[in-house]
Amino acid sequence: MIYFEDLEVGSTYHSPEHEMTPEEIVTFARQYDPQDFHTDAEAAKATLFGHLVASGWHTAAVTMGLMVRSNLELDGGVIGQGVESLRWPRPVLPGDRLRVVMEIIEIGTERTRTGRGRAKLRCRTFNQNDKVVQEMIANLVIACRRAG
Amino acid sequence: MIYFEDLEVGSTYHSPEHEMTPEEIVTFARQYDPQDFHTDAEAAKATLFGHLVASGWHTAAVTMGLMVRSNLELDGGVIGQGVESLRWPRPVLPGDRLRVVMEIIEIGTERTRTGRGRAKLRCRTFNQNDKVVQEMIANLVIACRRAG
Repeated sequence: MIYFEDLEVGSTYHSPEHEMTPEEIVTFARQYDPQDFHTDAEAAKATLFGHLVASGWHTAAVTMGLMVRSNLELDGGVIGQGVESLRWPRPVLPGDRLRVVMEIIEIGTERTRTGRGRAKLRCRTFNQNDKVVQEMIANLVIACRRAG
Repeated sequence: MIYFEDLEVGSTYHSPEHEMTPEEIVTFARQYDPQDFHTDAEAAKATLFGHLVASGWHTAAVTMGLMVRSNLELDGGVIGQGVESLRWPRPVLPGDRLRVVMEIIEIGTERTRTGRGRAKLRCRTFNQNDKVVQEMIANLVIACRRAG
């Protein structure tokens, strides 16, 4: 398990891969982002994208799942305090295989009353061609090692 | 249909409501954010939250769906360019009924080569007690009215 005291600026952590199947893209979008370019490969041709693409919120949700399954194994879990920026520089296409690289970019000096610290992470989600499809700067609340 | 030219700073748009059932909270989290406080009401008692809460990414996905079904009916769809900030000031609990209020806070002066403009929105997601559970500042790409 990793605790707040173990974190170092510049350290990176890695996730396994997840394949974005067309079925998963359409199922997510029908429920949460029902727009032609996310739900219907044929109708998507007449849209800005020109083909079926995953919802950015689907990519964000998959990224969260990959963070939870990464080697950043935080005691108490991966608890976000907020996101400072979230960008999708490239669309996610059916069949893309995503993975996440997390880098610690800032470590807070204060502790909460419940014995937690704060860290800022750059979380980049890559496709199988090593191109960034999502970049996020997020603040996490991270448990400190128990005293004694 | 609403076009870029129709937007005014200060205008607000509203969504319908969506109820966060315990089943939906757990189903989303099992797939995208598998942590005890999102997937297991009993195990959640021993976590930082003390009870089952929705994943922030679930709230974000539901917010997107509510934006698509709101009266901000944009020709060409709701297309995000990026998010400048995303916060979850309060947890979302099973049974909460969410709705979204969108406010135009900035309108870009440039147009893209494909005839689109940019606008910045404050999107606040409220629960049934009118408390903010998510606040997001997002930039959208919005189609202009066709010439002629």
